Amino acid sequence: MYGNAGKILRVNLTKSKVNVETLKEGFVREYIGGNGFATKILCDELSPETPPLSPGNKIVFAVGPLSGTRIPMCSRYVVVAKSPLTNIWGEGDAGGFWGTELKWAGFDAIVVEGSSEKPVYLWISNGKAEICDAKDLWGMDSYETEKALRNELGSKVKVACIGQAGENLVKIASIMNDGGRTAAHSGLGAVMGSKKLKAIATKGDIDVEVFNEEEVKELTKQMLKELLAHPLIQYLSRWGVAGDSLESNLLRQNLPLKNWSQVNWSLESAQLMGSRRMEEKFSVTRKACYGCPIGCAKIVKVESGPFAMQEQGRGPEYETLAALGSLCLNDDIDAVCKANDLCNRYGLDTIATGTLIAFIMECLEKEILSKQDIGTTLEWGNGEAVVELVRMIGTRKGIGNTLAEGVSTAAVTIGRGASEFAMHVKGSPIPMHDPRIDPVRALNYATVSVGANHGKLVPGKNESDDLTPSQIALRTVSQQTWSEVVDCLVMCRFAFFFGGVVLSREFYVPKLLSAVTGQPFTEQKLFELGNRLFDMKQFFNTKQGVGREHDRLPTRFTKIPRVLGEEKYNVDLTPSLAEYYKIRRWSEEGVPSSQGKN
Amino acid sequence: MYGNAGKILRVNLTKSKVNVETLKEGFVREYIGGNGFATKILCDELSPETPPLSPGNKIVFAVGPLSGTRIPMCSRYVVVAKSPLTNIWGEGDAGGFWGTELKWAGFDAIVVEGSSEKPVYLWISNGKAEICDAKDLWGMDSYETEKALRNELGSKVKVACIGQAGENLVKIASIMNDGGRTAAHSGLGAVMGSKKLKAIATKGDIDVEVFNEEEVKELTKQMLKELLAHPLIQYLSRWGVAGDSLESNLLRQNLPLKNWSQVNWSLESAQLMGSRRMEEKFSVTRKACYGCPIGCAKIVKVESGPFAMQEQGRGPEYETLAALGSLCLNDDIDAVCKANDLCNRYGLDTIATGTLIAFIMECLEKEILSKQDIGTTLEWGNGEAVVELVRMIGTRKGIGNTLAEGVSTAAVTIGRGASEFAMHVKGSPIPMHDPRIDPVRALNYATVSVGANHGKLVPGKNESDDLTPSQIALRTVSQQTWSEVVDCLVMCRFAFFFGGVVLSREFYVPKLLSAVTGQPFTEQKLFELGNRLFDMKQFFNTKQGVGREHDRLPTRFTKIPRVLGEEKYNVDLTPSLAEYYKIRRWSEEGVPSSQGKN
Repeated sequence: MYGNAGKILRVNLTKSKVNVETLKEGFVREYIGGNGFATKILCDELSPETPPLSPGNKIVFAVGPLSGTRIPMCSRYVVVAKSPLTNIWGEGDAGGFWGTELKWAGFDAIVVEGSSEKPVYLWISNGKAEICDAKDLWGMDSYETEKALRNELGSKVKVACIGQAGENLVKIASIMNDGGRTAAHSGLGAVMGSKKLKAIATKGDIDVEVFNEEEVKELTKQMLKELLAHPLIQYLSRWGVAGDSLESNLLRQNLPLKNWSQVNWSLESAQLMGSRRMEEKFSVTRKACYGCPIGCAKIVKVESGPFAMQEQGRGPEYETLAALGSLCLNDDIDAVCKANDLCNRYGLDTIATGTLIAFIMECLEKEILSKQDIGTTLEWGNGEAVVELVRMIGTRKGIGNTLAEGVSTAAVTIGRGASEFAMHVKGSPIPMHDPRIDPVRALNYATVSVGANHGKLVPGKNESDDLTPSQIALRTVSQQTWSEVVDCLVMCRFAFFFGGVVLSREFYVPKLLSAVTGQPFTEQKLFELGNRLFDMKQFFNTKQGVGREHDRLPTRFTKIPRVLGEEKYNVDLTPSLAEYYKIRRWSEEGVPSSQGKN
Repeated sequence: MYGNAGKILRVNLTKSKVNVETLKEGFVREYIGGNGFATKILCDELSPETPPLSPGNKIVFAVGPLSGTRIPMCSRYVVVAKSPLTNIWGEGDAGGFWGTELKWAGFDAIVVEGSSEKPVYLWISNGKAEICDAKDLWGMDSYETEKALRNELGSKVKVACIGQAGENLVKIASIMNDGGRTAAHSGLGAVMGSKKLKAIATKGDIDVEVFNEEEVKELTKQMLKELLAHPLIQYLSRWGVAGDSLESNLLRQNLPLKNWSQVNWSLESAQLMGSRRMEEKFSVTRKACYGCPIGCAKIVKVESGPFAMQEQGRGPEYETLAALGSLCLNDDIDAVCKANDLCNRYGLDTIATGTLIAFIMECLEKEILSKQDIGTTLEWGNGEAVVELVRMIGTRKGIGNTLAEGVSTAAVTIGRGASEFAMHVKGSPIPMHDPRIDPVRALNYATVSVGANHGKLVPGKNESDDLTPSQIALRTVSQQTWSEVVDCLVMCRFAFFFGGVVLSREFYVPKLLSAVTGQPFTEQKLFELGNRLFDMKQFFNTKQGVGREHDRLPTRFTKIPRVLGEEKYNVDLTPSLAEYYKIRRWSEEGVPSSQGKN
């Protein structure tokens, strides 16, 4: 067998059947793993017109050739399906332990088709799988579900599952694993919900063999040494993704405020939000994904007061602090921790949730809706309202039922000009990094296959007003393409922080792949694969009617400037988008020259 | 009389005479005040060939039209003379209360000529001045001098003075005022020392009248509102110029390390250095200059241990934390506070001092000098050595006597290749912001009239690898020129943080000047003046043999790259320098087309 690839588990929930498929050598050689496998399978098997919550949609989970090895920062899995939130390509990924365990159980990918009539979960162990009754799990939150399955199947079992939001087909529902790790993007939790698939539990003891054990050992040693010596990694390790506080983001004009309508906040508020404040108020511990020397996750518990958490859980990261905090002008760290905890339990994308809350607060401020319409007070900065809205969205109560459709659809339903301040691209909410100060981020938000997204880019340092349109386009293409490659391995992008300032992706990615699989890899070949995968997703989207006119940012970004010193940030995408289309060799309608051939 | 200008005090120490001169209206109209006055006077009266420590050198102190008014952030004074450190244009400026008091005493400028045989001080009050015996003050440090003069002359008297370093003609000696405020650059403390001028004490009650009281009131109100609402100002107010810690500077690759030979440090070390750590360890209070709502100064005291301070004093700012800290790989905050305190007392430029210490540490590491040569152990990171070296430099003891000549001369004296790592431009030490990540800073270091300097630029956000040579040159000229203008008022550059992100200089500078003086001011006219002043200083320097070949950075910056992500920082100044000369209309030899006419 080529490299260390395992098998594919195919599950048909309509027929209640599981089947183990062998990976073809050509397929493995060409698509590497993770994102490559998942994308190839979905593109081959799913008609882009399929309604996302219909049994016809498929959801594919995949890990990569480095998964389960000793190589650090390779714990992640990728999940793809047609997105119920955006109706185009849907994709998420998450760290933790579940992906590694899936590999140890002998599988590189799971393809779930059809849908069950009654709630089920999938139990995968050591090369086998069965579909089990999940009646007792249905209605549980994600933490309860994990616990229940461990009680049932053994304490070392790893679980990916949905909370109530996925069950309720909330279109921003996430897939949760390992106590708060989350594949949050694209509402794929609702796809699991529509299939009545509550969870996938997995356990395995199958050794992952690598081609050149000595070289893997050597590369691992070198990686760890470089990683741990780097101040950016030390920072991440010390403060987590939440960072010290929101102060530095505020100061460099990166922080979203008041549904992106405001550009300044008080320093004091920004200082109240972050790991330092959490450490002052709560007991905070660190948690790492499998094989990671950094340990960027913070485990917290609000002990008392109106926002007390029932037990400790994964604390908010930067995106969450901003989405449930500054975006709503909320500087109550207890409220953010509580709202974040509820999102983790219900299984909700915190970026999408915060975007909805800020949106509805603005509806009330603009008197598009009244307090009576909403059933609660929602003024900016009200931490209780933030928490209450999370509950309403997770359970589709009151206005939460409208919001559960996502900000784009909710704005259309509410009408009266609300779409003007629904902050999304192609239905996907704007991440918490201001596109006005970074033209590469801006162009990525506008063009990436899943709609606005912060993960699908291995970022460089692009906060500048001096890039030419062609430089902006070239960087965007390069960073998007590298992201596709890294997601094939599947590696954490923090390993390649700031486009390679920590580890060199050009050095490590081919070397690691070769050492593990025994096959030659060149940077160029990998880049070609990344481009091909990107084009396959784009072609999928064009079949759903997505064209160049959809590659745009909300008009708010062009109307409200964000200026730092002499920099006049330009969010006019027209020139860089033209260059981008040329570089990608897409037609005027956005159709890749490959015509989706892969 | 035009505007609110006062008089010039002319002091001849050889003749022991003082004379009060009236300001000519044309002079005031054309040169505004502060930097304008001082530059015009020195250029008119001083032959560039004059040896800096000879009686022929003149030293000019000046304040501006806004000094002494209610307008915030206008407490600063400017001081110019030929520099004993660099042998070219010398200039410093400082905040506090002394400048304001000078204005209230009725003077816009003091010109000191000649030199006294015995130590003297100048006592200026309400339009009068006398030269007084300073025998008892000679040998005192700056804090003791201030105290003694207040005991003598009254508790509200303000004092600018030199410590022992200035007396000892240490060529990096600073002028100190108001308990740790310092005009540190260019070694002008040694000029005072050479004239046996220990101090200038001043006290005044003369009201500063402004042309349009109502408008000044209105503008002040508006400024204060904008200032206090801005997070950058709130940050400055909260943490001081020291900042929270050196963490963010480390992370953005701005921090100098190991005499600029290293680019990474441990995050933990960086976190140990800054106001947060000082607050944890010491009692820290805030102190503001006259009329400043920010209060960026921190007053600290190391209570005990080997680095205990005898009394509380002004704490280290960013430049000092870096110079006496990271540049020497020293992360002992107590040692930095103590070394800083000694610098303040002796009257030493901390940037220059840190540069010398790092330089001599490298001499030892490279075995160019031995422990025996130096008389102490000096390994990197040794806090005790840092403190000890400060004492040796301030008092010219041992190797301190060689170092007291400044890093450029000391390197020549030591020989054996030491000049390779003497980090200066034209004899002036490199400030603590890495020129490798900011091409505008780099070009400014190379071209500004006083040699490498961080203050003589109103900075923008230029950390980018994408500026064209012409953009780099244009920005440098613009930011240097604005600095000349702001120094005429004399305003604190924190008011115009990041090239106008806080307050707009284009809006406020002309408006404030007009409201105070009753004369019309346009942005263009001010910019022309700024350029003229810059050219006058340049012409002065060319007369001293400075030419284009001196506009360069130490080769270390081109040999050791500093790279962040995809950015490859370019410190090849050749293309931007060529553009710069064109824009400034300087000849190939650096001679301004004005030929020094002013």
